[in-house]
Amino acid sequence: MTLIANTPEPPYYAVIFSSHKTGDNDGYAETADRMLELAAEQPGFLGVESVSEDLGITVSYWADLESIRLWKQHAEHRVAQKSGREKWYSSYKTRIARVERDYENQT
Amino acid sequence: MTLIANTPEPPYYAVIFSSHKTGDNDGYAETADRMLELAAEQPGFLGVESVSEDLGITVSYWADLESIRLWKQHAEHRVAQKSGREKWYSSYKTRIARVERDYENQT
Repeated sequence: MTLIANTPEPPYYAVIFSSHKTGDNDGYAETADRMLELAAEQPGFLGVESVSEDLGITVSYWADLESIRLWKQHAEHRVAQKSGREKWYSSYKTRIARVERDYENQT
Repeated sequence: MTLIANTPEPPYYAVIFSSHKTGDNDGYAETADRMLELAAEQPGFLGVESVSEDLGITVSYWADLESIRLWKQHAEHRVAQKSGREKWYSSYKTRIARVERDYENQT
């Protein structure tokens, strides 16, 4: 469970990762937790929001495209991505987007 | 419950709406369903993905910024937004982002 990410003023980048699971969750929860922890240590990481039911949506926020590229290529992350493709996810889509504007409300 | 949206080739736009609920759900489910239905009828609408636990994330996809602006100002949507601010959401954040790249996997 995550909270609404406390991101800086735009522009910054969002990686929207949408997925459906196969139902084989062997090793999934530990790896997902570890990836959130590891992502948070990367240069340019700004925050993450993640929710999962039948459909899962994880949005991570980054300072720039180079930070996203480096995280995608991180060795431990690559191992996790491979397990995701081969075992945990029946389908997924990743979108790289430039956040141009945001607004919020806290009552 | 929604599926991974079948969006066209980038560029297009994403509206990432992240929210925490107050716990007062009076009228919420009906309105949320109606807004998904109504959004899908708007010019420029490309798809939507929505998941909700303690944190809710709804990502809607649009052809351009003008479509997003018109949807935000739609009369029935404005009534729903007001109920959201005053009753259903303790906090929320909306981010407007330009999707520059996407890739997917279906096994």
